[in-house]
Amino acid sequence: MDVDSIDKRLLDDCHVLGTVPSGTLLLNRNASLHWFILVPQSKLFDVLDLPLNQAQLVFTDCAAISAYMKEELSYPKINFAGLGNQVPQMHLHIVGRHVGDVCWPDPIWGNIHHSSIYTNDKVRTLQEGLVKSVGLVVGAV
Amino acid sequence: MDVDSIDKRLLDDCHVLGTVPSGTLLLNRNASLHWFILVPQSKLFDVLDLPLNQAQLVFTDCAAISAYMKEELSYPKINFAGLGNQVPQMHLHIVGRHVGDVCWPDPIWGNIHHSSIYTNDKVRTLQEGLVKSVGLVVGAV
Repeated sequence: MDVDSIDKRLLDDCHVLGTVPSGTLLLNRNASLHWFILVPQSKLFDVLDLPLNQAQLVFTDCAAISAYMKEELSYPKINFAGLGNQVPQMHLHIVGRHVGDVCWPDPIWGNIHHSSIYTNDKVRTLQEGLVKSVGLVVGAV
Repeated sequence: MDVDSIDKRLLDDCHVLGTVPSGTLLLNRNASLHWFILVPQSKLFDVLDLPLNQAQLVFTDCAAISAYMKEELSYPKINFAGLGNQVPQMHLHIVGRHVGDVCWPDPIWGNIHHSSIYTNDKVRTLQEGLVKSVGLVVGAV
């Protein structure tokens, strides 16, 4: 997927990590918690409209990202959502949550009033972990 | 699925519509917009932890509910999410959205400050539609 095909608002908010089999993987710049965003390769808007074989591919990637977050980043809980009310391009939120995090137990959208950023090293470390665990291809966007 | 196995907080908030192949289908009592909640038959908490074959079944049911909402209830947009920060039992939100609805473009959680209720007839009509479109089995919970 060409990064130019991704909505500018998502690119403004996120680091581009690379590609996974079903699309492009982004990381929200707010490092208060780990908030990944998968942009599936599709011209459809809603994830539930995907044909079953593509939905399987998307689910498999999201599940692998979730497992990585639980195993390597120690999150007990993952929030998963496809909304798209603000940015219509299909994108799926995969967000690590734990009791006492910056907006627990509220959903993240509109409720994170704390901001911290990733160092370049931190982003690279996440990419390396995802290459191993999820099959991320870095720099192929 | 025995309705007794469903978290009381979900039952307090929802009408029980019946069962679909992957679990029990609920309808949030707030009729400001159509907000279905699928409770998959699973002891796991996070949808992304489901084994692939069960995830397919869940996705297929959610996609059928979404298609019903788009085709029969005229929603242009469906929000889909598995959160579970407040109620840990796995449950998936499938929510009809349109520009100008009660909390557009915000996510629904915590943002609906308007309440209206379904008549019994309205609930029955939805059940009848879902029996035809989604294979809902009424009264088997």
